[in-house]
Amino acid sequence: MYKVIEGGVCAARGYKAYGLNCGLNADKNKNDLGLYVSDVPANTAGVYTTNKVKGAPILVTKAHLEETGGKARAVIMNSKNANTCNADGIIKAERMCELAADALGLRPEEVLVASTGVIGQILPIEPIESHIKDLAAGLDYDGNARAAEAIMTTDTVKKEYAVEFTLGGKVCRLGGMAKGSGMIHPNMATTLNFITTDAAVSAEMLQAALSEIVKVTYNCLSVDGDTSTNDTILLHANGLAGNAEITDRGEDYGVFKQALYIVMSELTKMLAKDGEGATKLLECTVSSAPDTDTAITVAKSVIRSPLLKCAMFGEDANWGRVLCAIGYADAEFDINKVDVDFRSAAGNVAVCRGGAGVPFSEAQAKTVLGEDTIYIDVELGSGSATAKAWGCDLTYEYVKINGDYRS
Amino acid sequence: MYKVIEGGVCAARGYKAYGLNCGLNADKNKNDLGLYVSDVPANTAGVYTTNKVKGAPILVTKAHLEETGGKARAVIMNSKNANTCNADGIIKAERMCELAADALGLRPEEVLVASTGVIGQILPIEPIESHIKDLAAGLDYDGNARAAEAIMTTDTVKKEYAVEFTLGGKVCRLGGMAKGSGMIHPNMATTLNFITTDAAVSAEMLQAALSEIVKVTYNCLSVDGDTSTNDTILLHANGLAGNAEITDRGEDYGVFKQALYIVMSELTKMLAKDGEGATKLLECTVSSAPDTDTAITVAKSVIRSPLLKCAMFGEDANWGRVLCAIGYADAEFDINKVDVDFRSAAGNVAVCRGGAGVPFSEAQAKTVLGEDTIYIDVELGSGSATAKAWGCDLTYEYVKINGDYRS
Repeated sequence: MYKVIEGGVCAARGYKAYGLNCGLNADKNKNDLGLYVSDVPANTAGVYTTNKVKGAPILVTKAHLEETGGKARAVIMNSKNANTCNADGIIKAERMCELAADALGLRPEEVLVASTGVIGQILPIEPIESHIKDLAAGLDYDGNARAAEAIMTTDTVKKEYAVEFTLGGKVCRLGGMAKGSGMIHPNMATTLNFITTDAAVSAEMLQAALSEIVKVTYNCLSVDGDTSTNDTILLHANGLAGNAEITDRGEDYGVFKQALYIVMSELTKMLAKDGEGATKLLECTVSSAPDTDTAITVAKSVIRSPLLKCAMFGEDANWGRVLCAIGYADAEFDINKVDVDFRSAAGNVAVCRGGAGVPFSEAQAKTVLGEDTIYIDVELGSGSATAKAWGCDLTYEYVKINGDYRS
Repeated sequence: MYKVIEGGVCAARGYKAYGLNCGLNADKNKNDLGLYVSDVPANTAGVYTTNKVKGAPILVTKAHLEETGGKARAVIMNSKNANTCNADGIIKAERMCELAADALGLRPEEVLVASTGVIGQILPIEPIESHIKDLAAGLDYDGNARAAEAIMTTDTVKKEYAVEFTLGGKVCRLGGMAKGSGMIHPNMATTLNFITTDAAVSAEMLQAALSEIVKVTYNCLSVDGDTSTNDTILLHANGLAGNAEITDRGEDYGVFKQALYIVMSELTKMLAKDGEGATKLLECTVSSAPDTDTAITVAKSVIRSPLLKCAMFGEDANWGRVLCAIGYADAEFDINKVDVDFRSAAGNVAVCRGGAGVPFSEAQAKTVLGEDTIYIDVELGSGSATAKAWGCDLTYEYVKINGDYRS
């Protein structure tokens, strides 16, 4: 029902993108400025950081969506500088929108903006001014990869995913790109997610779907437990697929939301796997929970534990750390009913039953934990709700990257 | 008014202690079994982990205090094994109390118990049975250091502190010992704190003082953000100083509470400084907060940030990470009034004013951050409350210790 396709933010009809190096990044081989544009105004939903310190680009993006009643045409973005905690942040973020609007023949409020990189350093606007024409000129229906590269910071790979599905007989597409790595990494500079679709979805239903899916994907991701100042997720729907607009929580909404879940959960896993210094992707599934919120809380607590993250790096079946993290999660359930298994492509090892350890083969555990993707399965034995959370191991490399990133 | 003295848990009158190696630790040079005893029954207050997974020793200790109405004579403790998540945990913990009681001529319920080490492994009781007589025979009014050594796990130094003060003309003493290192370290195995005094304090006032001081000392300590299953703090008052018993929140209570604060805050700093792999002690002071809870929440958020901890290891004045951690703290204040300074024995460097970065000398910052103890001073500019939190940097060594502790 859902077919994986290529194309990232350009997978859906009517979206062009491009990226280039404008000089914010001294390495001329690395893109640092990106842009994507919808051929027609797109309903746009957003989710932003809950940090009190909010990047200027977020404030400008929210103001613009307010002005247009939630419709956008383009998004301009840069890496290397988060444009946050600067006295002139708003002016520079507005200027980026104006530059893109001028080059594209749009009104500035139809353009949104996102920045990622070091915070507290003045954003030099000249490199953007001098490259805006080239950026607009380069826009292409296949330009998604260049834009995805422009938002990379300590990311080691670009992150894109897209699917095709049908709504009322009409073929629809939904795809996106993300950057993360440190998950809010070094100078706290941001995770960005941009998703586009050609499905027709009302502004209200678009925001509802995004908020629901963010809760069980992106918000269940933890690389280091910090929360960035610039985190931004934008979801655009331009309606070019020609389906009957989704305006309520009917069947079509369910189909659309599942497409969004697939794309966002895959991007989330890519973010976790490419966490700074990570050698392993960790996925914790909490089942038989009294309710979804409890399942989420427990799964996130496990994924966030520095001790467990170190143990996974060391490929040590240290299940006591899983139980400890379950135990200090802020949720209500009976710890004496908890079962824990470690699982991977190499097999499964049961380590805890009813809250107490059970004998297991250390050799088998070592084999299971030797894989790149490790599943931590937790049964609470107290209901029927399930949730997942994703993270990565904690390694020497993480410390190295974050001990001297800024300088 | 408060004089620092030697003696740890034996600093106060009427307390004997001892420690030895019984074989739980294969290294015969390392003590793994400890005991201390009060000559007379002592009012005893306790604070324990909030983790749902609670070590069996905690359950037994609480039950015994319940039985005696909060009076204890002795505490037996071991390292290397936390006696947690084992089916026979309670039986073994009770047995430890019985063994000590037999050797000392006490009732089992007059003995409390604490364990620290790996969880989920059955505690071998034979080594304790076969060494209990030697342990009791070794008890001495100067045996505090041997007991302090018996609770060390990955701790690199033993931790003791004591002060002398007067209450109504009577000389009183209060001292204690602690272990921590990973702060709830590796297999989540516990931080233990034991404090004794010869001051006469009612059970109610003793618990009140302990609960208040724990909140601003031990609970403001974070090495890795995990919360152990075995955390235990016991405070005993045997009244041998001969002062008029403290039964209300009068002047004497204030004097006593300050003594407790001094000892517990010094032990807290020792725990932070000896955090696993730590090279630096971090102390965050949050001032001009709307209330104490806000100050505590913000200070702990800063101290807990893995990104800041890495930056401190790298001696990088990455103030944006401080502001980020302040921003995601769950508290209400105006982020645009926040000032941040880094400070050490080498000087002071202002890095943020009114929520935005200010120019500073990188060379000077490097000098300031080159010291072993780093103070992070945060002014919220929104009131008059103050609080401190303590932690340490995040280093390669932390990852190494925790990647292969269990095996």
